Amino acid sequence: MLEQLKKEVYEANMLLPKHGLVTFTWGNVSGLDKETGLFVIKPSGVDYDQLTPGDMVVMDLDGNKVEGNYNPSSDTATHLELYKAFPDIRGIVHTHSEWATSWAQAGRGIPCYGTTHADYMYGEIPCVRNLTKEEIDEAYEKNTGVLIVEYFKDKDYISMPAVLCKNHGPFTWGKDAYDAVHNAVVLEEVAKMAARCELINPQALPAPQELQDKHYNRKHGADAYYGQ
Amino acid sequence: MLEQLKKEVYEANMLLPKHGLVTFTWGNVSGLDKETGLFVIKPSGVDYDQLTPGDMVVMDLDGNKVEGNYNPSSDTATHLELYKAFPDIRGIVHTHSEWATSWAQAGRGIPCYGTTHADYMYGEIPCVRNLTKEEIDEAYEKNTGVLIVEYFKDKDYISMPAVLCKNHGPFTWGKDAYDAVHNAVVLEEVAKMAARCELINPQALPAPQELQDKHYNRKHGADAYYGQ
Amino acid sequence: MLEQLKKEVYEANMLLPKHGLVTFTWGNVSGLDKETGLFVIKPSGVDYDQLTPGDMVVMDLDGNKVEGNYNPSSDTATHLELYKAFPDIRGIVHTHSEWATSWAQAGRGIPCYGTTHADYMYGEIPCVRNLTKEEIDEAYEKNTGVLIVEYFKDKDYISMPAVLCKNHGPFTWGKDAYDAVHNAVVLEEVAKMAARCELINPQALPAPQELQDKHYNRKHGADAYYGQ
Amino acid sequence: MLEQLKKEVYEANMLLPKHGLVTFTWGNVSGLDKETGLFVIKPSGVDYDQLTPGDMVVMDLDGNKVEGNYNPSSDTATHLELYKAFPDIRGIVHTHSEWATSWAQAGRGIPCYGTTHADYMYGEIPCVRNLTKEEIDEAYEKNTGVLIVEYFKDKDYISMPAVLCKNHGPFTWGKDAYDAVHNAVVLEEVAKMAARCELINPQALPAPQELQDKHYNRKHGADAYYGQ
Repeated sequence: MLEQLKKEVYEANMLLPKHGLVTFTWGNVSGLDKETGLFVIKPSGVDYDQLTPGDMVVMDLDGNKVEGNYNPSSDTATHLELYKAFPDIRGIVHTHSEWATSWAQAGRGIPCYGTTHADYMYGEIPCVRNLTKEEIDEAYEKNTGVLIVEYFKDKDYISMPAVLCKNHGPFTWGKDAYDAVHNAVVLEEVAKMAARCELINPQALPAPQELQDKHYNRKHGADAYYGQ
Repeated sequence: MLEQLKKEVYEANMLLPKHGLVTFTWGNVSGLDKETGLFVIKPSGVDYDQLTPGDMVVMDLDGNKVEGNYNPSSDTATHLELYKAFPDIRGIVHTHSEWATSWAQAGRGIPCYGTTHADYMYGEIPCVRNLTKEEIDEAYEKNTGVLIVEYFKDKDYISMPAVLCKNHGPFTWGKDAYDAVHNAVVLEEVAKMAARCELINPQALPAPQELQDKHYNRKHGADAYYGQ
Repeated sequence: MLEQLKKEVYEANMLLPKHGLVTFTWGNVSGLDKETGLFVIKPSGVDYDQLTPGDMVVMDLDGNKVEGNYNPSSDTATHLELYKAFPDIRGIVHTHSEWATSWAQAGRGIPCYGTTHADYMYGEIPCVRNLTKEEIDEAYEKNTGVLIVEYFKDKDYISMPAVLCKNHGPFTWGKDAYDAVHNAVVLEEVAKMAARCELINPQALPAPQELQDKHYNRKHGADAYYGQ
Repeated sequence: MLEQLKKEVYEANMLLPKHGLVTFTWGNVSGLDKETGLFVIKPSGVDYDQLTPGDMVVMDLDGNKVEGNYNPSSDTATHLELYKAFPDIRGIVHTHSEWATSWAQAGRGIPCYGTTHADYMYGEIPCVRNLTKEEIDEAYEKNTGVLIVEYFKDKDYISMPAVLCKNHGPFTWGKDAYDAVHNAVVLEEVAKMAARCELINPQALPAPQELQDKHYNRKHGADAYYGQ
């Protein structure tokens, strides 16, 4: 079932090592089939060089495994919460990519220092708080998703397709699994250049709002004119 | 038309990922045909691994597309302003290369800390100011070029073939498209070593003027003796 | 003799350059055969691209060479002390991997800033003191092992399979040679992200204890649920 | 003539891009034939991927070209001074490798923070002063060599086979061209880890003298026991 989606999710997962975003098995991509309400996700702890499309696990949005020989990613419950709350996304990525994770460990959002950032993500990339001990004990992965959803409840998850979880790492999303990986790559580049920007000039300020607006709108929305 | 120039511009564009200067489609190279006053530029938002020489877009210096199946790079208007104002250049490169962009985001010019820099670029690599909201709203890409030209109006664009645009990224130029790419690579190396130099010694000073002069003149001008 | 173990130790040694953990011959892996009490280790100063499984050296736990055409690694006496004191390990790695060594040179343990660290190593990765001149003169490599064992005498070497030796570099261990290499890779990633975390936020604090506990126990022990 | 030496010097030059020590043509290796008093060096400004053994240039120690189709490296006069003053070396390397050059630009010698450094180089790697305007005008490349020789006149150039030239970059040497490249690689690794060491702990101190002595003497001299 969902053979095409499994193939896409498999390919999107394989893009993570290709782009240098994962060490060992430290990442996972999922993709949602909107019609059936099922999503496909990488199995937990399986090496990337041994993955096949058929290894992908099919889940429903209640968290039940529908098909698959393996256990799904241990972060499945986080993906599930995001799919339920963000109706316009069909792909999610989690990694421990080194620069984004360094910001997450530092507990800081990433200011928008330039047009590379503004081309894809509108404003500061947020870093959400630690879960409490109670939230961890109750349902760690689920509550990670709940916390992200809570943060975005009065914000636009389309123009900010990324979040950092404090002392943990990033999640990104997109219109499909490939797009979510694309955003994970962008996040990593932006995180790297923001850190170096601050080393070069500790008093650096975010890009002027009009420049951020110009670049974001050059690529997104009704007046976009970038690309073909 | 301009088949040879299209091939050169295509090859020069392909050197950007080879040298690690671009992620995804974040860069563009153009080349000018001095006789016809036409220039050739990468199409907007097309993946590097799908580019062909025939995809290059031919433009005139009034900004009209003369030939091509694709829209030209969204930065075409910037290239055009530079070609009009700098009569001795025939190639231009824009990238978001990581170290040069980090300096641009930091809003600082790059001091000449050593001979690697002085071999190619004479003095501090400038960082031009942000455009105003009015300049952005009127014509963002064109005014980016106008601002660069304004900066260089009483300066030598030959001995300083690079500029940083604040909160954005670098442009470089040269005697042809390959040479402009060469300068983009040099800029990135120089930007990286200057940032690290300042971390190693926050009180570091630029190289003595006589050393900068020696190295620049060893490679450029009537008394050059580097190379064959 | 011990052909299978030689092959494993050979393969584990070859993983060091593959993962970018060694320059030239700056690393060594050993593996222990519990039944015979013999261990197999890389020969000293032999290039990785010339190694073969048959070049591995077989040692006993009294430090006698049992088989092999080459001298064993100059760090053999350190490995030996660890095998004698840590009954549940069967693989040891020493490298000069760049980030872990930078922390060792800085003389600091690596705080647990995030879940990447907590997934594998419980608490701060320790940095043990310099040996005294007397200890160096008496038996440098042996006393390096003695010092590590002394540090761990009231601690759990299973949940902390890594140590930094001040002004020197890291040792890691594991349930076999592959596992010890796995931990060496983790250590390097963790060391890199911890250094960058502190640059991004000099006031960064370790991850909350409950988050460290959650991640460590998600992957280890009776209640682990990561993987298959 | 000197076909074997040309081949060695060619191969040693090709190791520079292999080890990531050069961009474009920014480096050169030479090798000395002790019997004839001739040395072989890379031609100036020729791309590494177009070099052949036959392109190497043969020079005598008076600075005359003895054989070759190309001009020798522009740094030839520096090599020559070192060969004349350091009787026990037969290979020299100059690069603009990024970390060593960053230290040179910072105008600082590299403290011996650990055993990686002490295994190869005894004590702080020196950074010599800028040449004066008079020295530059008189004979830049020759006086670069004279300055290095002056620095080492009461020091041991064998146990410290490397130097940084302020605002310029490193030179290394060795018992042949390969060994000089080996030292250039070591220098770059040591420079990188020393810079990171200081970021991790700005109060870091050099390794204790007895540890430096132990490691240097473990690999060099009558009591060496590293390797085969």
